[in-house]
Amino acid sequence: MDGQEKTGTTAGDDNGARPPAGTSLAGTVLAGTGVSPGAGYGPAHVLAGEIPEPDKEARHDGDAAAERARAERAVEEVAADLEARGARAGGEAQEVLGAQALMARDPSLAMEVGELIDRGVAAPRAVFDAFGKYRDLLAAAGGYLAERVADLDDIRDRVIAVLTGLPMPGVPASAAEPFVLIAKDLAPADTALLSKDVVAAFVTEQGGPTSHTAILARSMGVPAVVGCAGATAIAPGTSVLVDGASGQVLLAPDPARVAEARAAEEARRAVLSAATGPGATADGHPVPLLANIGGPRDLESALANGAEGVGLYRTEFLFLDRETAPSGSEQEKAYRAVFEAFPEGRVVVRTLDSGADKPLAFLPPPEEEPNPALGERGLRMFRRYPEIMTAQLGALARAAAGVSAKVQVMAPMVATVEEAEWFAEACRTAGLDGAGIMIEVPSAALRAADLIRAVDFFSIGTNDLTQYALAADRQVSAVAGLQDPWHPAVLDLIAMAASAASEAGKGCGVCGEAAADPVLACVLVGMGVTSLSMGAPALPWVRAALSRHTLEQCRAAAAAARSATSARAAKAAARAELPGLDALAL
Amino acid sequence: MDGQEKTGTTAGDDNGARPPAGTSLAGTVLAGTGVSPGAGYGPAHVLAGEIPEPDKEARHDGDAAAERARAERAVEEVAADLEARGARAGGEAQEVLGAQALMARDPSLAMEVGELIDRGVAAPRAVFDAFGKYRDLLAAAGGYLAERVADLDDIRDRVIAVLTGLPMPGVPASAAEPFVLIAKDLAPADTALLSKDVVAAFVTEQGGPTSHTAILARSMGVPAVVGCAGATAIAPGTSVLVDGASGQVLLAPDPARVAEARAAEEARRAVLSAATGPGATADGHPVPLLANIGGPRDLESALANGAEGVGLYRTEFLFLDRETAPSGSEQEKAYRAVFEAFPEGRVVVRTLDSGADKPLAFLPPPEEEPNPALGERGLRMFRRYPEIMTAQLGALARAAAGVSAKVQVMAPMVATVEEAEWFAEACRTAGLDGAGIMIEVPSAALRAADLIRAVDFFSIGTNDLTQYALAADRQVSAVAGLQDPWHPAVLDLIAMAASAASEAGKGCGVCGEAAADPVLACVLVGMGVTSLSMGAPALPWVRAALSRHTLEQCRAAAAAARSATSARAAKAAARAELPGLDALAL
Repeated sequence: MDGQEKTGTTAGDDNGARPPAGTSLAGTVLAGTGVSPGAGYGPAHVLAGEIPEPDKEARHDGDAAAERARAERAVEEVAADLEARGARAGGEAQEVLGAQALMARDPSLAMEVGELIDRGVAAPRAVFDAFGKYRDLLAAAGGYLAERVADLDDIRDRVIAVLTGLPMPGVPASAAEPFVLIAKDLAPADTALLSKDVVAAFVTEQGGPTSHTAILARSMGVPAVVGCAGATAIAPGTSVLVDGASGQVLLAPDPARVAEARAAEEARRAVLSAATGPGATADGHPVPLLANIGGPRDLESALANGAEGVGLYRTEFLFLDRETAPSGSEQEKAYRAVFEAFPEGRVVVRTLDSGADKPLAFLPPPEEEPNPALGERGLRMFRRYPEIMTAQLGALARAAAGVSAKVQVMAPMVATVEEAEWFAEACRTAGLDGAGIMIEVPSAALRAADLIRAVDFFSIGTNDLTQYALAADRQVSAVAGLQDPWHPAVLDLIAMAASAASEAGKGCGVCGEAAADPVLACVLVGMGVTSLSMGAPALPWVRAALSRHTLEQCRAAAAAARSATSARAAKAAARAELPGLDALAL
Repeated sequence: MDGQEKTGTTAGDDNGARPPAGTSLAGTVLAGTGVSPGAGYGPAHVLAGEIPEPDKEARHDGDAAAERARAERAVEEVAADLEARGARAGGEAQEVLGAQALMARDPSLAMEVGELIDRGVAAPRAVFDAFGKYRDLLAAAGGYLAERVADLDDIRDRVIAVLTGLPMPGVPASAAEPFVLIAKDLAPADTALLSKDVVAAFVTEQGGPTSHTAILARSMGVPAVVGCAGATAIAPGTSVLVDGASGQVLLAPDPARVAEARAAEEARRAVLSAATGPGATADGHPVPLLANIGGPRDLESALANGAEGVGLYRTEFLFLDRETAPSGSEQEKAYRAVFEAFPEGRVVVRTLDSGADKPLAFLPPPEEEPNPALGERGLRMFRRYPEIMTAQLGALARAAAGVSAKVQVMAPMVATVEEAEWFAEACRTAGLDGAGIMIEVPSAALRAADLIRAVDFFSIGTNDLTQYALAADRQVSAVAGLQDPWHPAVLDLIAMAASAASEAGKGCGVCGEAAADPVLACVLVGMGVTSLSMGAPALPWVRAALSRHTLEQCRAAAAAARSATSARAAKAAARAELPGLDALAL
């Protein structure tokens, strides 16, 4: 553990602007894609690469008992560390890390390791092989168990690191000063313990605007650059200055440059705090700014960042990791807690979006799905299990009955008019007024003018819409370059949905990651989008960006972006029409 | 095996029109989706359902040696039967079935079965558990091995069927008269041995227009109805009359009705044979009719059905199931064989479309893909392995050099302008003229006007385009209802591509299953599609349908279809504008 904690903090001093002695990196600039704006500065902490596979033929020196003891100590050290980190983190992270510690201490794993050592296999290889066997079983089991493979691999790598003296994989939980976390890519497990106090910025070599890193960084309000080639070659401890808007990563900058960036950051913070009140363009065109939330625990941040309501209330958290569906009264209680937090505002609830990367134990798909993202997810699952929908809509109607918030309900993954009509009818039957649909399947955007007749509003889910329009998986970094909501084809689909809604005199919000990009937010408003919903930390940025431009400027930016023939050109063209972003250094 | 062969032929006599004694089915009509036109009549052969899992607690009577011998005999019976069926089928099917026989005779499987029997487990359960263990290992291995799981399951079910006296799963290889094959759904393995002489029609409960059954039926020229609820409840042997255009399945029809259908079928055949020569509308607007082929072995059928060239030459067959890429000279030879078959015609070659459901051993994706259809497939794979592209384009250029056919090359899975430009440049460098792209990603259709500037032609792949536009997996029957190229959103995308090409004075073909639907073919021509490529047996149907309508009628049908708000309504609206289809009973 020591090796790990040290790496992040060896370089720099309190002033922090000095490059490590003996290097000539000063002023080197790496370029990536800025995905979470702001300036971050600190020493580089480079996440250790993969632990190499221990030699197949490695044998111990013959003292099997000693080797077994050594393996047992290593496993116990790792398990205890996981527990300790969990205790420090608390909450959900504690549960995850505690479960990992239990897994590490599994007696059948220990027995398997012991048997291999008794046959002469060296401890690191014995650990590798024993874990490998369980790995295959888990993977073959599919579903939830298969997803635990990454946790098992993580334990295996940690134990092998202890046994072989390699630096421990993973991220330090604390540091003397905030560090810039650099990695090939970040997995959720890498980041469970991170906070703004520890991480000054993120830089990854892979990933795109909708990668886990990007979403995490925006939700934490930490600057981030993804797709930054060469980043992991940065020497640990090098001072790094990260611009999460332009995507520039400056190595060992001189002190003047750092001071300048800090001053600019302060000026920017002042601009951000100056924009208050309901969202609107400079000329007073109102654009309600709403928060995306995953449950009552996200309310505090939403309110602190001035959300005017909730534009996307994901209800999956009530259904995940349990054996049976939550009862109607349990649901009702959770929904009401959110409704009551916004007595004057809107709360848009998305019905259960299971399937794809969120399988539910009690709603198994009827057949194996080679491509779950193209399978029976979202509303499609309700077609098979209508009783789940009826129960959820009933609970929502009861929760909405006694509150002053304007409650609206929408369905995910609607592709056809018939599906939209079916859902709207179910909402009416449940006594809900205001049934909407997500626009995230290309056919729904293409046929928005047909679909809007069946419902009261649209909410565009730009993450999935981009995934399907470009046929590029959100979860695969090899195609992250295609996963960009700035792609003109995606802008076309958004414009189709927004203008169909506008012509019908109905609302069309955006609740994907696109709404959290202050530049793209202006373009969306210019295309006729009527509200924007995002992770709460992005709200001040979007509020400020909108307040500095007229609706006409937003429209010009939208037209310019749609005239471009690539995502990069679209962003540049829009940016050129939005001069007010300069003050935000965007 | 006897039980199996009998099922298909017990009912009916040579006249065939008599319902089985004692039933009152006469005149019952089931409705499904017609996916391969024509009338088929014969006794029902209902594919046996799943073999139930043998009782977990089942023990044999204590004579382990006798039980082992019984298990060994059953395995050998199944292996020998697979071999015999392979020998009858020849070709690729022989290889597949031979490999299955080898798998059945695997000594480690036998040992595992024997050990379980020695512990008292009854033979059927021992077979189930032993195979289950290998199943998990194969599944965990991923890739090609994981795909063998279905083969292993098939062997297991056959052995258990022999041991328990259940009817053997699978399709009879021969029959006294052609039967109507009825199943929940058909897998490729079920159909390896089928021919037109044996199968009068297909009826499945699941599946949509792009399901395996639909594609197979069209390629065999056999009538088929899919999505037919209640079909597997039809008593084996019942006489069934299938209309592969309307989707009607008539049980135990009276003799007059059968005679009528046969007469209509003959009249239709006369209409089909009357349409000859190059494809064109009634008023002489030429629409080249081309064949989709998977290699030189498909040339005979293409030529027999009057293909004017090849609109889609899939080159994957050269690359699949091998350890290394084929050499340049091996490729050149295969390509030239196809080019020489059409000295006067066009041959459009699609470069390697690996990835997704066609992984290649020597081009592994760099990371696990949770949704391979949205991953690094088609041209995206070439971005990672450009040397494979260079070698293929070089071989194509050399093969094209000495021939008179007009050779054109196109890339699959293009999503952006930049990809199109990159591929076109690579074609030019290789000395090929005529670089095109498939339009199968929604973004490419939406931005067709931008993409056409980079290339010489488009070819629309309606299967994938539909899959992405509706976010509905082609391989999953639960979402087959969404997998319909008649969906107005898909028609919109096709129209965007066709008009962008037309405005640029370039060609836009269609080479998906949509082109093989005679009604949709007219609509495609009405939207500005300039050539149609399909499985060869569909060519006479499409030729006849086009020859009976003017371009103006096709345009009216296209406009009517695009005014509809559902796939079903679009088809009905188009049909109403195309009176010439009556003579084809379409």
